[in-house]
Amino acid sequence: MISFDQSFAALADPTRRAIVERLAEGEATVQEIARPFSISQPAISRHLKVLEDAGLIETRVEGSARPRRLKPEAMGMLWNWLGQYRALWEAQFHKLDAVLEELSNEEQPVPHDPREVHHE
Amino acid sequence: MISFDQSFAALADPTRRAIVERLAEGEATVQEIARPFSISQPAISRHLKVLEDAGLIETRVEGSARPRRLKPEAMGMLWNWLGQYRALWEAQFHKLDAVLEELSNEEQPVPHDPREVHHE
Repeated sequence: MISFDQSFAALADPTRRAIVERLAEGEATVQEIARPFSISQPAISRHLKVLEDAGLIETRVEGSARPRRLKPEAMGMLWNWLGQYRALWEAQFHKLDAVLEELSNEEQPVPHDPREVHHE
Repeated sequence: MISFDQSFAALADPTRRAIVERLAEGEATVQEIARPFSISQPAISRHLKVLEDAGLIETRVEGSARPRRLKPEAMGMLWNWLGQYRALWEAQFHKLDAVLEELSNEEQPVPHDPREVHHE
């Protein structure tokens, strides 16, 4: 079971989001995960622990190797939570679009007819 | 521009997620937002400030009213970030399904053919 509190808190960090992006491509060892980062391996391990405690990733045991992998069901739950009212916030998007379009139409100057004769 | 750090941190709280769910249904005043909660209106206002600082909601000025509303583009950005590797984590889901199916097939006893003659 994932915790929404812990999961969203875990994602509130750019390094941890980058780790999630890396693991979305497939499982990886701590060494592989740490490689592109300029921070120490123990610091990466601490970030991995936060992600694992939140239920977003898990450790697989394979001999002496401990590859980490994403838990797709956890990602799916967060995605579904954000998406549950998508129809509603997309409707607000479209309403905003309509208002902006109306405003831009109002701002357009009425085309001037050069044949028009002005009486003042 | 939304901050992913601040947005995900803002959502790491059950009251703030409930406020987002309320506002997904349409804009509301602080009084309306506070009504279903057993916490004080100043506490709700503090939660609203966290959500507004994160760029997830905004305040509309209408006479003396200050209704809050969700910023759909911010919700959309978070949803898209979570969904960007969806094909990848869904593939992992299906791989897991396939493994589970294979395991359950292995556990199923081979149907016994009563016409079969055993020679021992």
